[in-house]
Amino acid sequence: MAILLYSSIDDMDVWRGHFRRVMPNEKIYLPGEFENAEEIEYAAMWEPPSGMLSGLPNLKVVFSLGAGVDHLFRDGSFPRHVPVVRVIDPNLTEQMCEYVLLHVMYHHRRMWEYGKLQRKSEWNLLETKRIGDVRVGVMGLGVLGMAVARVLRDFGFSVAGWSGSHKEENGIACFVGANEWNAFLERTEILVCLLPLTDSTRGILSSEVFEKLARCGDTMRGPVLINPGRGGHMVEEDVLTALKSGVLGGASLDVFEEEPLNAGSGFWERDDVVVTPHSAAATDPVFVASSIRDNLVKLERGEEVGPLAYVERGY
Amino acid sequence: MAILLYSSIDDMDVWRGHFRRVMPNEKIYLPGEFENAEEIEYAAMWEPPSGMLSGLPNLKVVFSLGAGVDHLFRDGSFPRHVPVVRVIDPNLTEQMCEYVLLHVMYHHRRMWEYGKLQRKSEWNLLETKRIGDVRVGVMGLGVLGMAVARVLRDFGFSVAGWSGSHKEENGIACFVGANEWNAFLERTEILVCLLPLTDSTRGILSSEVFEKLARCGDTMRGPVLINPGRGGHMVEEDVLTALKSGVLGGASLDVFEEEPLNAGSGFWERDDVVVTPHSAAATDPVFVASSIRDNLVKLERGEEVGPLAYVERGY
Repeated sequence: MAILLYSSIDDMDVWRGHFRRVMPNEKIYLPGEFENAEEIEYAAMWEPPSGMLSGLPNLKVVFSLGAGVDHLFRDGSFPRHVPVVRVIDPNLTEQMCEYVLLHVMYHHRRMWEYGKLQRKSEWNLLETKRIGDVRVGVMGLGVLGMAVARVLRDFGFSVAGWSGSHKEENGIACFVGANEWNAFLERTEILVCLLPLTDSTRGILSSEVFEKLARCGDTMRGPVLINPGRGGHMVEEDVLTALKSGVLGGASLDVFEEEPLNAGSGFWERDDVVVTPHSAAATDPVFVASSIRDNLVKLERGEEVGPLAYVERGY
Repeated sequence: MAILLYSSIDDMDVWRGHFRRVMPNEKIYLPGEFENAEEIEYAAMWEPPSGMLSGLPNLKVVFSLGAGVDHLFRDGSFPRHVPVVRVIDPNLTEQMCEYVLLHVMYHHRRMWEYGKLQRKSEWNLLETKRIGDVRVGVMGLGVLGMAVARVLRDFGFSVAGWSGSHKEENGIACFVGANEWNAFLERTEILVCLLPLTDSTRGILSSEVFEKLARCGDTMRGPVLINPGRGGHMVEEDVLTALKSGVLGGASLDVFEEEPLNAGSGFWERDDVVVTPHSAAATDPVFVASSIRDNLVKLERGEEVGPLAYVERGY
């Protein structure tokens, strides 16, 4: 068995080291190293260049090295008959829950406003709501979105979720599909986006959406956007415009259309925006290598593996 | 029955309005309003001036209008035979848990360092530990301290507590007394102080303590101080010196020796310090008034009330 390994962002030799430690008997190729394309049965990929996977006639399965799969499916030549296995890293989920709870609390407790006061040496108490009155809405109730929604619920926030397919969860108001989209937005004052990035969700965070969100508390502060998922969901100009006009009252942004975020971006200089460098949650290569090894063993035995992603659906 | 009401910080007529709403048949006096000191059987106080309570021969019980009682016992003429009833406001506890979790996470996720990078338009990933490896220590395991320790434990931090008296709690390493003081400090990288303010805890947050704390992670960043309790616990000059030298790696400070914090204080200008204006947790006057009313009914019936605080112990 031979595995083709590629990552656009990490040191591939480091990845190969992790793979070799748990799969000492397999051939692990980096691009350009193999002579016979027919030899490659598996691929483990992060953001492969277009065409990398289309010339492999015996490719059985592609593993995604991170949480999303949009980095695979945006390649028009991706081999549609090949199943994609997503890696569910509990460490990544844990970090994502940390990030979202921290940033929801940060805005709820008006931390950037206190930061501005601090820089002026001003002692001034700002009103905050009770946590049970703070309405957080999570877009996307997949593995990450649902985990985040549960943490927020358990901590006492009033939580709703919106999803493309029907979900049920105790203590979380689950909205579904286009029909319930407006109702979800109209009750949400802190919006968290953890949707998969697909053709139908690209650019979903736009002016039209921001204007439907609920204003916050007696002060009618603008709603807050928290985006720790994919930069492609945001129309960045719309986010900036909404912040400037007060349609949005703050944001925590971890992902952007282009990363690293351009030094000229208007986000950097805003007090009401927290910019973090795609640091919300990172996949642990040691865990991913073990997980892929376990899945390979199952595949070779003819057992089922998962969770699977599908080109048609986009996730 | 007549009640004497006083607060050094809030509008007393607002307080009286809350009292009257739940106790329409009682006499509620502000200082200077009553003619006969013998009439006063109860007092509800925040930070009374020295001597206010010593001339009331029939005073049966003093109610504290906030979480601590140091504001009562620091008056040398406080009538030692009169029991003090503390108000336990669940809303205050909830807010305190929010504040501490937010600020522990803020430092754990290196938010002030990311803030500095943002102001320079720099995209730079900083290493963080897994949450289970972050050792938080809570000084004081009373109502507030224990609630906070449980929330931190439930969220996944490695939590210890230190207390003057023996405590036990699942998943929290409980240290007790002077003998276990050093062991508690040496394992703690984020220190939260929720002790009562007494003669023996005043100034406890000093250089000597900061130097014993654990450094944090591979980067050996200095430990973090979170003080949402009482300013009198801190030797402010020691905190500043420790921050400047890197003995402390950051702080979130909500309370100070003098409040409002002096505009000339060195805390305001530090990136590694979050200054908040005694905003961690506020007593809800509506709840306090109801709680005092309920306790008065019990007292008049001869039933037990609590929790009680004692001059000798200081809390």
